[in-house]
Amino acid sequence: MRVAAIVAYDGTKFNGFQGQPKVRTVQGEFEKVLKRIFKQKVISWGAGRTDTGVHGYGQVIAFDVPNERMTLENIKDALNANLPEDIYVRKVLKVRDKFSPRHEATKRIYHYFIYQNDEPNIFLRDRVWWFPYDLNIEKMRKAAKYLEGEHDFTTFKTGNDDRNPVRTIYRIRILKMRNNIILIRVEGHSFLRRMVRNIVGALVKVGTENWEPEYIKEILEAKSRSKAPASAPPQGLYFYSVLF
Amino acid sequence: MRVAAIVAYDGTKFNGFQGQPKVRTVQGEFEKVLKRIFKQKVISWGAGRTDTGVHGYGQVIAFDVPNERMTLENIKDALNANLPEDIYVRKVLKVRDKFSPRHEATKRIYHYFIYQNDEPNIFLRDRVWWFPYDLNIEKMRKAAKYLEGEHDFTTFKTGNDDRNPVRTIYRIRILKMRNNIILIRVEGHSFLRRMVRNIVGALVKVGTENWEPEYIKEILEAKSRSKAPASAPPQGLYFYSVLF
Repeated sequence: MRVAAIVAYDGTKFNGFQGQPKVRTVQGEFEKVLKRIFKQKVISWGAGRTDTGVHGYGQVIAFDVPNERMTLENIKDALNANLPEDIYVRKVLKVRDKFSPRHEATKRIYHYFIYQNDEPNIFLRDRVWWFPYDLNIEKMRKAAKYLEGEHDFTTFKTGNDDRNPVRTIYRIRILKMRNNIILIRVEGHSFLRRMVRNIVGALVKVGTENWEPEYIKEILEAKSRSKAPASAPPQGLYFYSVLF
Repeated sequence: MRVAAIVAYDGTKFNGFQGQPKVRTVQGEFEKVLKRIFKQKVISWGAGRTDTGVHGYGQVIAFDVPNERMTLENIKDALNANLPEDIYVRKVLKVRDKFSPRHEATKRIYHYFIYQNDEPNIFLRDRVWWFPYDLNIEKMRKAAKYLEGEHDFTTFKTGNDDRNPVRTIYRIRILKMRNNIILIRVEGHSFLRRMVRNIVGALVKVGTENWEPEYIKEILEAKSRSKAPASAPPQGLYFYSVLF
């Protein structure tokens, strides 16, 4: 039986999602627990990578269950009883054999939280980007419109990523929440490395009125990484959900 | 010049507020930074102790400034530039010489947050008490009334505390907030060791309908520590403010 776990994690103390030798990763911890529960190596597949410090809320991890007598509820409870305190399995669902979260995802949604206030809030320090300057939300929304649709996002990638730079963003919403929180919600098919954080960094440049909204169109069309502004920091970013 | 700093801290990684040799405490870190800034030992006085894992939002720490040329803003900035990421000075005020936060406080306010939901939220794990059962708020409010006023709180203390057990609670409010958060706000003159957490533990016993509200009066009058329920866990508790 193949199952998919919907997984939340606090990215603060992980070297990102993807399993790698010798460093603490979400997938590494998850597979360690699968091995403990099932007494054998169990391979897992995630719906997307996240970098160090980036959080998961709706990450999807699929794996084959070697013990056919366990119910979905048993599997969820066994995982949560064994996982470290910074990973939590919200749900376990049965999926069809060969289901691949990465290849079959049709939409990925990221949430980015900015705490816009003169003074920082230490209780949110690993959860949001503290930003002590004013942001013009209307201008940010106007700028975001230029990024929606299918584009070559070369300008907005960072690091090693030699995949096709053409990606589709379905929608970017910018919402003022309570308590000085601004939520930037980015929905797309799939994303390049650091693409969401680079987009947020650029939108904030517009929000501070250092850049006009139209300048986003210009840097996008330049297809040049040197045009990209600094990435927004990782702790404000959440891999929120995946649709199939 | 004597000043008072209004200090927030995330209690997760501290062995409580009060300075002690060889362990990491809020006061210990604060005095280390005072020494670094002023190049001499500077003694500090807090408004109240907090235990391991308990947070500060409005803790008050007084000290004498050896360098008379620094402004209050300079002092605040120097402290925040040197303090670790889990302590933040919200304000620095000039106070009169000999001002003692501990002796001159007329009211101390604690906030306790319960996250009442079937599923935990890992992003709140060090910030609230996750409580997955229903709570009858009306019964908790009725029970809290028995604790208001001047009483011998022997039943509600834990650990070594040989001070006078007679204390005055001005008011206890229980509020349903958004997103399944319940806030218990306790205002009093001063508190015994673990008194707020023991009160919250008892109120939750009433909330789950294991105890009738009137039973709180009975255990209070018994003046016996063996009647006390388990303490509420530390991570939900915030030393919210001090009035003088």
